Amino acid sequence: MVNGRIEKNPSGLKIFFEPKSVAVVGASRTPGKIGNTILRNLLKLGYEGQIFPVNPRAEEIEGLQSYASVAAIPEAVELVVMAIPAHLVLEVMRDCQKKMVKGVVIISSGFSEAGKEGMERQRELVRVAAEAGIRIVGPNTTGILNPEGRFTTTFVDLKGVKKGSIGFVAQTGIFAGMMFQWIFSSQHFGLSKVIGLGNKADVADHDALDYLAQDEATRVVIMYLEGVKDGRRFLASVDRLVQKKPLVVMKGGKTKEGAKAAQSHTGSMAGRDEIFEALFRQAGAIRVNDFEELLDLGKTFAYQPLPKGNRIAIISLSGGAGVMATDACPESGLVLASPAEQTLARFREKMPPWSRPGNPFDIEPLSEVVTQEGAYRLSLDVLLSDPGVDLALLIMSTTRTPQIHADYVIEVARAHPEKPVAVCIIGEASLYHRLFQIMEEANIPVFVGVRRAVASLAALYKYRCFLDNLSRKS
Amino acid sequence: MVNGRIEKNPSGLKIFFEPKSVAVVGASRTPGKIGNTILRNLLKLGYEGQIFPVNPRAEEIEGLQSYASVAAIPEAVELVVMAIPAHLVLEVMRDCQKKMVKGVVIISSGFSEAGKEGMERQRELVRVAAEAGIRIVGPNTTGILNPEGRFTTTFVDLKGVKKGSIGFVAQTGIFAGMMFQWIFSSQHFGLSKVIGLGNKADVADHDALDYLAQDEATRVVIMYLEGVKDGRRFLASVDRLVQKKPLVVMKGGKTKEGAKAAQSHTGSMAGRDEIFEALFRQAGAIRVNDFEELLDLGKTFAYQPLPKGNRIAIISLSGGAGVMATDACPESGLVLASPAEQTLARFREKMPPWSRPGNPFDIEPLSEVVTQEGAYRLSLDVLLSDPGVDLALLIMSTTRTPQIHADYVIEVARAHPEKPVAVCIIGEASLYHRLFQIMEEANIPVFVGVRRAVASLAALYKYRCFLDNLSRKS
Repeated sequence: MVNGRIEKNPSGLKIFFEPKSVAVVGASRTPGKIGNTILRNLLKLGYEGQIFPVNPRAEEIEGLQSYASVAAIPEAVELVVMAIPAHLVLEVMRDCQKKMVKGVVIISSGFSEAGKEGMERQRELVRVAAEAGIRIVGPNTTGILNPEGRFTTTFVDLKGVKKGSIGFVAQTGIFAGMMFQWIFSSQHFGLSKVIGLGNKADVADHDALDYLAQDEATRVVIMYLEGVKDGRRFLASVDRLVQKKPLVVMKGGKTKEGAKAAQSHTGSMAGRDEIFEALFRQAGAIRVNDFEELLDLGKTFAYQPLPKGNRIAIISLSGGAGVMATDACPESGLVLASPAEQTLARFREKMPPWSRPGNPFDIEPLSEVVTQEGAYRLSLDVLLSDPGVDLALLIMSTTRTPQIHADYVIEVARAHPEKPVAVCIIGEASLYHRLFQIMEEANIPVFVGVRRAVASLAALYKYRCFLDNLSRKS
Repeated sequence: MVNGRIEKNPSGLKIFFEPKSVAVVGASRTPGKIGNTILRNLLKLGYEGQIFPVNPRAEEIEGLQSYASVAAIPEAVELVVMAIPAHLVLEVMRDCQKKMVKGVVIISSGFSEAGKEGMERQRELVRVAAEAGIRIVGPNTTGILNPEGRFTTTFVDLKGVKKGSIGFVAQTGIFAGMMFQWIFSSQHFGLSKVIGLGNKADVADHDALDYLAQDEATRVVIMYLEGVKDGRRFLASVDRLVQKKPLVVMKGGKTKEGAKAAQSHTGSMAGRDEIFEALFRQAGAIRVNDFEELLDLGKTFAYQPLPKGNRIAIISLSGGAGVMATDACPESGLVLASPAEQTLARFREKMPPWSRPGNPFDIEPLSEVVTQEGAYRLSLDVLLSDPGVDLALLIMSTTRTPQIHADYVIEVARAHPEKPVAVCIIGEASLYHRLFQIMEEANIPVFVGVRRAVASLAALYKYRCFLDNLSRKS
């Protein structure tokens, strides 16, 4: 659907993220039901607008007065969330039209993903919405989450949700829900805005990117995509976004088999993947191949600055892990920095005569002299002070004094705010989690595997190159 | 060192894993010191042989009578562990010779990895050992761990250690220690035998592989390697091993930069990597590029059978995750199975008329009819019963009833013992961990990322192909 007035407004989706009032159609008193969880989530987040549960068989739900229909609500309603069987949606849309509702989020499935009948239903939905000037997110989606603005339409358990600077655009409902829960419960980073697009009957990928491009809380956008609704507009939106902030994309349907599967489950054409691949590269979007990688890169962009170049210092308590990290550099586009003679001299002062400082820097000999935490601090500080080093990876072991070790690393990283730092930690799991918490709280991304850490740092450099090329062109 | 008698004996390293008695030279009363932790680890594991602490300044350590020297021990000593400064090692070796000790594990660093003086010291060590007919593990290593035999020489915290069927050969001391702790504390699988080779003054990679090849408790061998001591013997040992069990190798020094780094920290020549690459491929060893991948493949081989072919069924609660898994198949060598018409008919009976069963199989529509757990069970059972399916990946969400969901999946997997199954779980972290525990206890490997799951299943097929080729040749 094209709605001229709203389309031209770059903050066109604001109504979905910061509505003054919301009606939840299909609100339920039964815990565990979608229509109950959405209400509870709104209350738990502390949404400050008006909430109108709609359920003809209830007078009060979760302490809120319930209404028989949208039309029966005595006040203005900006946004309507529908969690009702698909065949009831159109009737509610007509109520929304009368009520001058601005946007609806349709959680219900049973539309274009559900055979011929569903497709027909979606076409009719779009027609009614266009006529009414109502914008639609969905159907078949978990919808919206705005942790800072305390608004959501999602039925996913929000335990552990945090506000942050990562914007997330997801195509598919269930996968998005699963990913959200994993993020809330296992990741330290927070989210700025989340939008599940579902079937994209109206609001599509390009709208979401345009909105996040101008959203000040969003520093990086991560995206799960299967196909795009309008290739030309998508490309234009990506172009605009990546001039302001990085975009990390996981796109399903990379292979022939995957593309076929994507088509059958969301009804979206994945398109020829080579075209996307070229498009992403040309537009400066960074493509990843798995959900874990999507989060790795997302948090690294959210936490760290962009490096000036690709010369990495690798500092490792374990020589072996340093070797593995070194091996991961060439394919990722990073090169080992060559420390200056005076840098090496600063190490030699402190190290046993037989040991040779270098890059990767095996700090075990140094740690025998200045303690392990002292070696982390000294080596990271000396190497980040070298003008020939653009970014650093520190590989640590777990320790019984995580706070001391972490504080040293954080202090040094803060003293070099222009150079990205990532940390790998291998060792005892509960001590790992303690270090992880302290480090990530201080915006230092933590990894277990060295390849994932190197790939994440390399992504910062790739985006820097893209921006440099842009500014050369202009 | 070549010791004819022992070399020809395939169980030549038995003395290191199952000694009747062990002396710990450098035993300490101070908690946290290496010489104390080794003793505590032996006691904690419940080692049933005799333990002789050796420390000239103590009469009793950890409740055990201490001796001034190895020579002063009144009984026979089979194995000696040394955790003392490098310059004292040779003197103790001479004591060991008098005492007819069969093997020594040298934890101490300060040998070939430590400059010219260290190299000279190692040469002398090897000379003395050869003369005395004593075999050496190390120096510069954490040494031995045999959870089933309750023996160890390691100073790594053993909290969480479990016996199992994965043999682990590690080259480098600190990295090995860090990896052990991660395995003990975060992984469900157990280890059969672990050997840290360190500087390989005597016992080398090929000895370790020969020993593990004949070790009945070991079902799969995982290995971290930087260089080999004797290429020809290594190749011969790999050849013998892979005829009996799979070998997964993470080799540092893959790139020019990595090879240089490996050389400088263990003094081992990484060798030209193309040669290793060809060697691994020809010999049927499976190479991985990161520590996380090493564990993924190790546990999958330990838990699951080899498939008869490469036709995979992908079953997913989330269509999107199913698409991502499908995309990962072609590059890994797996192909999507084409379910038989009667297989699809069994699904159609139960599914909404608009939905289409296929592969990847999006079970959301089915779960609306038979519940989520019912859909996992039915789809996995029906697809594994199809003769055109060789192996399966099931992608689940977390659930508030993990036991019920897991039991269903386990029951079906057990009913098809000849077909490998792996599971991806995405969702709330604590519920993930519960499902993880139950599933892995039942030998079903669990992953978060779909690519890692697909790569692990694909490794089973690669090894099957290698074995099939072998039997065709013979």
